[in-house]
Amino acid sequence: MRYAIGIEYDGSGFLGWQRLAEGATVQAAVEQALGFVVDHPLEVVCAGRTDSGVHARCQVAHFDTDAARTPFALQQGGNSRLPKGVALLWCQPVPDDFHARYSARARRYCYTVLNRRVRPAIQREYLTWERHPLDAAAMHRAAQVLVGEHDFSAFRTVHCQAKHPRRNVHEISVRREGERVVIEVQANAFLHHMVRNFVGSLLLVGRGEHPEAWIGELLAGRDRTVAGPTAPSNGLVFVGPRYPREWGLPDEVCL
Amino acid sequence: MRYAIGIEYDGSGFLGWQRLAEGATVQAAVEQALGFVVDHPLEVVCAGRTDSGVHARCQVAHFDTDAARTPFALQQGGNSRLPKGVALLWCQPVPDDFHARYSARARRYCYTVLNRRVRPAIQREYLTWERHPLDAAAMHRAAQVLVGEHDFSAFRTVHCQAKHPRRNVHEISVRREGERVVIEVQANAFLHHMVRNFVGSLLLVGRGEHPEAWIGELLAGRDRTVAGPTAPSNGLVFVGPRYPREWGLPDEVCL
Repeated sequence: MRYAIGIEYDGSGFLGWQRLAEGATVQAAVEQALGFVVDHPLEVVCAGRTDSGVHARCQVAHFDTDAARTPFALQQGGNSRLPKGVALLWCQPVPDDFHARYSARARRYCYTVLNRRVRPAIQREYLTWERHPLDAAAMHRAAQVLVGEHDFSAFRTVHCQAKHPRRNVHEISVRREGERVVIEVQANAFLHHMVRNFVGSLLLVGRGEHPEAWIGELLAGRDRTVAGPTAPSNGLVFVGPRYPREWGLPDEVCL
Repeated sequence: MRYAIGIEYDGSGFLGWQRLAEGATVQAAVEQALGFVVDHPLEVVCAGRTDSGVHARCQVAHFDTDAARTPFALQQGGNSRLPKGVALLWCQPVPDDFHARYSARARRYCYTVLNRRVRPAIQREYLTWERHPLDAAAMHRAAQVLVGEHDFSAFRTVHCQAKHPRRNVHEISVRREGERVVIEVQANAFLHHMVRNFVGSLLLVGRGEHPEAWIGELLAGRDRTVAGPTAPSNGLVFVGPRYPREWGLPDEVCL
C-alpha cells in the first residue's frame, strides 16, 4: 500500500532533505520515525528536495508499506518519534501509481527579505537581511520576464543534476509588506538553486545596481557567471508541490 | 546625557529581561554591550520587563553616559557586541527627565496561538499550540469586558510586585488568521503574567468549556484560583510601549 504524507519542517537544524552518510537530514528523520512505526525499513520519496537551512510549509512525500496501520496511526506514531522541527501534517493512502515527484505539476516557493538598516533578532532563521533600500515594484516588474518556458541556465548551479535546463515558470511576484519584501514563485519544477539565484539577481535590481531589463539579458545570455550571487538559504520556504485534483490529496497541495 | 534605545529580541535564549545573579538575560546582554562601547559600567532601565521566552518587537530602555559617542556609534557599537538574538533598532538622546518606564503611557502585547490538530514544526518558538478548535469570535466578544479600568486580581500572579491591582485596558482583540488565532491587547500597564492569564482563560472560552460571560465573572470575583491557567510564554511578543509624541521618539513607540 502506498501512502502520501504532508510534512512541515524547520530547515535550521538539518543538512537539507536528502539522506546523507552522516548528519541530520529531514529524509532520514522521517524514514526513521515511520520505519519504527511500521517495523521495517522504508524509503520516503519527496516532491522537491530542499537545501540545508531551507524550510517547508508542506513538503509531500510517498512511501510503501503493508503494515496493518491506519493512516492516522502512521501520522500520530510518526509525529511522536520525529524531532520537534519536523511534523507530519496528514497521511493518506494513494494509488500505487502516485509518485510524489513525478505526479507533481507545480511547486511553489516563498522567499522573505527583511529590508531595514538593522539586522534581525526575531525570526532570523526565516529571513534574509538586506540593509540597502529595495525597490520592490522594480523587482516585480523585472521578474516578469522569467514567466513562461525558458532555458534557465543563467540561474542554475553548476552542481545541478537536471537533464535539461528548461523549466516553465507559472508566476512570480515581489511585494513589500512593511519592512519585508516577499518573493513568491511557482513553476512546473525548479533547477538546483533556481529560486535563490532568481532572488540574488533581483536583489541587485532592487538595490538599483542593475536596470530592470538586466534580468531578461541574463535569461537570454544563459551564463551563470554574469548573474547575481546565490541568495542565502534563510528566508526560503518550500510552500509545497501541487497535484491534479484527481489524486484526492488535501486542498493545500492541489492545483 | 540620557539616551533612549529601541530593542528587538528573541526571548528563546534568555531567562527574561531582568538581570540575574546567573544566567543569560537581555538586560545583562545590553548592559554589557553598551558598557563596552562607552567604557564604563551602566544600567539600562526598560519600559516593561518580560519573562523567560517572551519576545520583544520594540522594547524601549534608557541609560545615562557622558562618553563622547554619537547615538549612531552607540547603536552600531552595541549591535556589534550583542548576541544574535538582540538588536538595537535605534538610539537617540532624550531629556534627562525621560524615563523608559514612568514616561510610558501604554504597552502593547501580541499573543499567537497555532490552532490545528498537528504540533508546529516551523516558528515553534513564536507560537503556542492549541489542538482543540477555537471560536475566535466568541473569545473576542468575551474579552471586551476586560476593557476599561478594573481590579485585575483574577489575572495576576501571586509573585506580582505591583503596589495595586488596578490597570486600564485600552483595547483587546482576538482574530483568526487561517490556522492562527491572534490576541492583541493594549493597557496603560500590566500586572505580572496578566496577558498570559487573559489568554489562558480566553482559551477555555474559545474551546467552549466556559460561556463568554465567564470572563466577566472572573474579573468581578478577583480570585486568581478560579481563573484559567497561565498560557505558555511562547507565543507572547511585547510589541512595545507607547509615549506621548512630545518626547520625539520614533513613530512606532508613540501614542
